[in-house]
Amino acid sequence: MAARDQQSAEERLIARYFRPLATHPGAFGLTDDAAILTPPPGCDLVLTTDGVIAGVHFFADDPPDTIGRKALRMNLSDLAAKGARPLGFLMSAALPAGIEEQWLPAFAAGLGADAERYQCPLLGGDTDRTPGPTSISIAALGAVPQGKMVRRAAAKAGDYVVVTGTIGDAALGVLLRREIGLGDRLRLDASMREHLRQRYLLPQPRNALAEAVLQHASAAIDVSDGLAGDLAKLCRASGVAAEIDVARVPLSDAARAALAADPTLIEKVLTGGDDYEIVLTLPPERLASLRAAAARAAVAVSEIGRIVSGDAARFVHDGKELKFDRPSFSHF
Amino acid sequence: MAARDQQSAEERLIARYFRPLATHPGAFGLTDDAAILTPPPGCDLVLTTDGVIAGVHFFADDPPDTIGRKALRMNLSDLAAKGARPLGFLMSAALPAGIEEQWLPAFAAGLGADAERYQCPLLGGDTDRTPGPTSISIAALGAVPQGKMVRRAAAKAGDYVVVTGTIGDAALGVLLRREIGLGDRLRLDASMREHLRQRYLLPQPRNALAEAVLQHASAAIDVSDGLAGDLAKLCRASGVAAEIDVARVPLSDAARAALAADPTLIEKVLTGGDDYEIVLTLPPERLASLRAAAARAAVAVSEIGRIVSGDAARFVHDGKELKFDRPSFSHF
Repeated sequence: MAARDQQSAEERLIARYFRPLATHPGAFGLTDDAAILTPPPGCDLVLTTDGVIAGVHFFADDPPDTIGRKALRMNLSDLAAKGARPLGFLMSAALPAGIEEQWLPAFAAGLGADAERYQCPLLGGDTDRTPGPTSISIAALGAVPQGKMVRRAAAKAGDYVVVTGTIGDAALGVLLRREIGLGDRLRLDASMREHLRQRYLLPQPRNALAEAVLQHASAAIDVSDGLAGDLAKLCRASGVAAEIDVARVPLSDAARAALAADPTLIEKVLTGGDDYEIVLTLPPERLASLRAAAARAAVAVSEIGRIVSGDAARFVHDGKELKFDRPSFSHF
Repeated sequence: MAARDQQSAEERLIARYFRPLATHPGAFGLTDDAAILTPPPGCDLVLTTDGVIAGVHFFADDPPDTIGRKALRMNLSDLAAKGARPLGFLMSAALPAGIEEQWLPAFAAGLGADAERYQCPLLGGDTDRTPGPTSISIAALGAVPQGKMVRRAAAKAGDYVVVTGTIGDAALGVLLRREIGLGDRLRLDASMREHLRQRYLLPQPRNALAEAVLQHASAAIDVSDGLAGDLAKLCRASGVAAEIDVARVPLSDAARAALAADPTLIEKVLTGGDDYEIVLTLPPERLASLRAAAARAAVAVSEIGRIVSGDAARFVHDGKELKFDRPSFSHF
């Protein structure tokens, strides 16, 4: 057999769609068993893994170019919250039969655009046929100066609580997608609906703020399972409590309009998840420096409350504490 | 809410089953967004990812303690073939509803036993509910001295071709599992059937030989998609050909008995995959040193042929070249 004929369909698929994303020299064009990465001197590696499954994290008919980008951005958001800069990623893709020609070119193109945008190249991967739903799992590597990763565990009483961007948009976007007629009932105009849709389709991880998080935050967590639940995790890890002024939680115009029409949606906004924002704590004297860095990075930041002694995250709205049925998104 | 009540079911599941595996201090007991790993000085990181899906890589009713071990060992085998020592792994687990109580304790116990055995601790993970089959994806990290990873790409004409262990057992084990009555037709005794079954259930990655591979091999590849296809990949990457004497390919007693009963099974043996052995090339003057190191590591090694100029891997049996319909396992 000639060498070309010996190539399997799997090798050809990888060469066609994924090799262009493997721009790192240590990826060897995806033609070896493994990749190599020479760690940046004086740095710790920061490692995270997150993935998406059709019907769970995205709708099977979502635009294919957004699927890989969403999976990568979920991981980039974890790196940003830890103050790390991206180094690269590994991807494991489980694909149902027949998906190649329609779906893969757009999927790979979207993923490649983000790999370049966030300077986070594909280092290696694994492609399998699955009898189940499309499933994309990513493991991302980042770097921080040795010993400097921003933990969940070091928030102190007296710290401010700050959150990036806006909260609740993606959860409302999923709701609009699921409940036909909801957009009309909430009296949302077309641009508001599109804003919420885009926010669940394509997270905007705050990697531009990672350096400032590293410089200023005492603790931080990526908001992926809902602000209430993720802040509770940070509080548990730090052995502190938080008091959050719900009126100061940053909302988009669309989320504000939805809440005006149905105030009970506040629970969905605070617990729905898929935000991919950062919630961080920092000593009061650091707030001005963080604000200045955030302005330079063009990332909105909002001070929403304080860390206090205790062991819970309390959300106070019009003088009353909100009680949530389910403070955090959970798969189980 | 008290802190404990705020924990989600997902957090409790992770704490119960997976935290015991996260023995590396940089895993923070799986209570942060990310793990840290301080790279060993003077080393390159070696990165690989591989996974298993129920109904594709394992049978849904395979013993649960073998599933995670198999997924981890597939990755350990890649590290071994590259001459790398394991540092740790990330795991992404997609689990169908209702799997927890029956399946997870044994799954986690098996995975934990191997993490300890191979000194490859869990660094982080992601657990999702899936409407599809159970799916476990692992990304493993290893280390080699800088610039020393054993590539597929440096085999030279004149090198010997050496393979570890025995070839074809797992593929025959799957066949026995799929075809009722085959064991009787092949006249395999109970211990032979059990040997072949164990070989597909639980790979035996050759990490004990990794240091010797690093010292002596000019090129190497993990045999996971079949000896014929994987050797062809090594030849393509190196721009050489191989001539393999099929009579010297190492076989277990069980595989030998199966081939005696049905000689056409030779194609399955050489192309079926799931071997998780290493095929490596090395200059003739290195063979004695490799054999000595392999004896010390208690890993069998067999010289099966030579690298020659050309561009294909040829398997010669009784003076005739074998032609394979499908030289390599491929998902696509």
